[in-house]
Amino acid sequence: MNGADMLCDVLLVNGVDVCFANPGTSEMHFVAALDRKPAMRCVLGLSEGVVTGAADGYARMADKPAATLLHLGPGLANGLANLHNARRARTPVLNVVGDHASYHLQYDAPLTSDIEGLARPMSQWVGRAAGAHDVRRCTEEGFAASIARRGVSTMILPADAAWGEVSPETLSPVAIPAPPALEPGALEASVAALRSGRRAVILLAGRALSEKPIETAGRIAAAVGAAVFSTTSARSARGAGRALVRPVPYKIELAIEALKDFEVAICIGASRPVSFFAYPGKPSTTLPPSCEVIQLAGHEHDLGAALEALADGLGIGPDAAFARNAFRQNDIQVPTGTLTPDTLSLAIARHLPENAIVIDEALTSIGQYNALAPGLNPHDHLPITGGSIGIGIPLATGAAIGAPDRKVVAMQADGSGMYTLQGLWTQAREELDVVTIVFANSAYRILQGEMTGVGVNSYGVNARKMLDLDQPKLDWCSLARGLGVESGRATTIEEFLRLYTGALRRKGPFLIEAVID
Amino acid sequence: MNGADMLCDVLLVNGVDVCFANPGTSEMHFVAALDRKPAMRCVLGLSEGVVTGAADGYARMADKPAATLLHLGPGLANGLANLHNARRARTPVLNVVGDHASYHLQYDAPLTSDIEGLARPMSQWVGRAAGAHDVRRCTEEGFAASIARRGVSTMILPADAAWGEVSPETLSPVAIPAPPALEPGALEASVAALRSGRRAVILLAGRALSEKPIETAGRIAAAVGAAVFSTTSARSARGAGRALVRPVPYKIELAIEALKDFEVAICIGASRPVSFFAYPGKPSTTLPPSCEVIQLAGHEHDLGAALEALADGLGIGPDAAFARNAFRQNDIQVPTGTLTPDTLSLAIARHLPENAIVIDEALTSIGQYNALAPGLNPHDHLPITGGSIGIGIPLATGAAIGAPDRKVVAMQADGSGMYTLQGLWTQAREELDVVTIVFANSAYRILQGEMTGVGVNSYGVNARKMLDLDQPKLDWCSLARGLGVESGRATTIEEFLRLYTGALRRKGPFLIEAVID
Repeated sequence: MNGADMLCDVLLVNGVDVCFANPGTSEMHFVAALDRKPAMRCVLGLSEGVVTGAADGYARMADKPAATLLHLGPGLANGLANLHNARRARTPVLNVVGDHASYHLQYDAPLTSDIEGLARPMSQWVGRAAGAHDVRRCTEEGFAASIARRGVSTMILPADAAWGEVSPETLSPVAIPAPPALEPGALEASVAALRSGRRAVILLAGRALSEKPIETAGRIAAAVGAAVFSTTSARSARGAGRALVRPVPYKIELAIEALKDFEVAICIGASRPVSFFAYPGKPSTTLPPSCEVIQLAGHEHDLGAALEALADGLGIGPDAAFARNAFRQNDIQVPTGTLTPDTLSLAIARHLPENAIVIDEALTSIGQYNALAPGLNPHDHLPITGGSIGIGIPLATGAAIGAPDRKVVAMQADGSGMYTLQGLWTQAREELDVVTIVFANSAYRILQGEMTGVGVNSYGVNARKMLDLDQPKLDWCSLARGLGVESGRATTIEEFLRLYTGALRRKGPFLIEAVID
Repeated sequence: MNGADMLCDVLLVNGVDVCFANPGTSEMHFVAALDRKPAMRCVLGLSEGVVTGAADGYARMADKPAATLLHLGPGLANGLANLHNARRARTPVLNVVGDHASYHLQYDAPLTSDIEGLARPMSQWVGRAAGAHDVRRCTEEGFAASIARRGVSTMILPADAAWGEVSPETLSPVAIPAPPALEPGALEASVAALRSGRRAVILLAGRALSEKPIETAGRIAAAVGAAVFSTTSARSARGAGRALVRPVPYKIELAIEALKDFEVAICIGASRPVSFFAYPGKPSTTLPPSCEVIQLAGHEHDLGAALEALADGLGIGPDAAFARNAFRQNDIQVPTGTLTPDTLSLAIARHLPENAIVIDEALTSIGQYNALAPGLNPHDHLPITGGSIGIGIPLATGAAIGAPDRKVVAMQADGSGMYTLQGLWTQAREELDVVTIVFANSAYRILQGEMTGVGVNSYGVNARKMLDLDQPKLDWCSLARGLGVESGRATTIEEFLRLYTGALRRKGPFLIEAVID
């Protein structure tokens, strides 16, 4: 066996059995090794943004890392933007990046580049196999780091490490270190703060947003009269029957307004909320400056246990009441006629199937969704986490592979969708159960809003050239057809509902181009 | 005026009047400033691989840098793969990458990342404006470096440097340092080597491949009995009436065979030729180990002047004879029937218009083009330089803007074309005169060949999943339609010729999906 075989074996024994891939010549021995391992599911992406974004979506749902297979520095580079999102989502990902044979690097062949340098900004862990003999150590270390540090591991596999011979070894899963204990005093300070009578907010992020932790937070909130907010996270359990968690709004004015009354914040997974961007004369953080911030637990901790400990410390038992979101989906009145972000979000919400995975890269077109979400069928919400657009289609692709029995409903803005539309082809190839709704407003609408913010209300040629997408108009149905995905175009609510409910009834990928203003 | 206005003014006074852009919120003040400068042509790319690849193609033809406008670390990251190609092409590019306001970085907002770290592997120069007052210095330095070092400059523009006020200044073009003198002794050694009677090869790359330098090389070669070869370069003058330069073949066996007899190599712009990839048991370099290599001039030198000096040193006058390529285009016999790489290349060559710009990302489907090129109408050949696939469509886009009166004929493999197909939309938006021929073989054919090279001849499920593109088949005509570009599909030579000659007669973008086996 060779180093590439060893790599596959270490992945498989550790439960990594999906590899999102876009290989090249320097990875051919790895491809050949993967071909000898039918237990590994290889999924091709036609650009590396699809590969890394799908790995993020997979891990958000499967709760374990996928491997990626990327071709040297440029292949990694193409995947970095979605690795940025994965990094912000604290998603475990194990990248395998091929490189030239070690002795070939000195010749600076055309594809040579500083792979470590490219990897570091978006990776928690970067390693290089020093030879075939080192592949096991490197793979195990990278895998363990992706879980223990909840982040992106990037392993560089030189071609001669892949093709070099190694002896078979008895492999077993690597031990993952237990999460660290909470910082001394943090629990006591949190308990005291919540007992103090000050207006308190519990800020949740990351794994604190799964079903059970939000119930615990809900019990605490009900008992002490605190609010529960969330900052953008990989995956949030939402919907009827669950505890209410309010997202901190994206817009800085709304965020400041939502948080303005709090005197103390208990952060669990979350950090002090910051403005997405800075604006002249506006603050960078959105809690009142006088608000005390207590960091009870960070992403490295067991956030569910931290919430349980907080409840225990407050004497709140597991049977204490919390406010469950009421089911209101059937009450939603869907208007007829024109498609707008508001009417479209009402229509999507009204028919959201049970246990759906909702992908959210709708950006300015999100409409009423966040307001409606608590009353909908229980679902998981997977948003863009790092602000690096082009995650939506890949995220849906990976999530559908990570949770194959669940319907994926992807709300996709058109400008960001264009970054990684290639992922639709992977949805077709793998017959994934994804309904993609493209919010086609033919503009970078979010930037049009920002232009107003910097005082520009009427555009000249150059601003129009950079912010409008309507010359020519994108034809998403043709694009979907070109990528093997069935599609339909809706210009009214009636057309949309017909396409949407039809797509929900069938299996497999479907794209709806919803033309909004 | 603010820092963003200053940036625009410095660009314009230095002749940088095209900006390939994909902006975001942190660049809104720069967008607003660009909107106040109608002398700047802003060209939107729907993904950053289009932006940077177009900047490369533009500079290859316009012989001056374009600016790019990229959105923080992830926006830059998406453009890095084609910046890798630009780096290998020694193309001057001036990236402007927005960043958060400097005081906002400490809060690690979601889009924060190590932009310098991302930029360095693909940039010759990296700088950051320390404030609005520093924008002029930073822009001038980055611009000058892109030309003097022939490479990629990346300038980081924090939002507060863009929006901060500055006083108007009288601007003038920055001085670019003259190219350095040749290394002492290099000219004498080259002259002596070419007079020695040893079998010699003159290896050209970079700007040594424009029309006049290759004539000088041809005169030297004719006088001393040397061969002239080229390694992959940004732009090569090819065709009838010009001097013959033979490309070193991509395949290592063919490269070794082509170079096996040489005893001395004079490198002008080129370096010792290396194998694109390493293979077990095969050498990394392709000249015979005993061949002496003399580096007369590197990319930093004036390569035309170096060739003239070499000719002078050998006593070869400007009127000395050289072998001009004979015009053979009309002799090409185009078969009928099936489309294959060979027959398709014959058909493309037979009708290549005068003064065309030929974009070459055909990879394994190149067929007979390189063999036919010397006998065709004079043209410029712009290939993929760094092996980072996905350059073809952006390169064609930028080249058409850089040389608006010339027809662009783009030979595009399908797998690599999928990386940056978004560039077709920019061709439609800017009404660029580009005929794109997609060599649709529905496979990563180059990798199928490499699999054979590593001893795998029959594939299992995983190899097929990673190397075949035929489930589902890509429909390039639908993709082009979706992006606003007219198109047609050809499955026979007759169909292809009808579409191709029709496309050559009209203006504007057209895509031909040539279905080959």
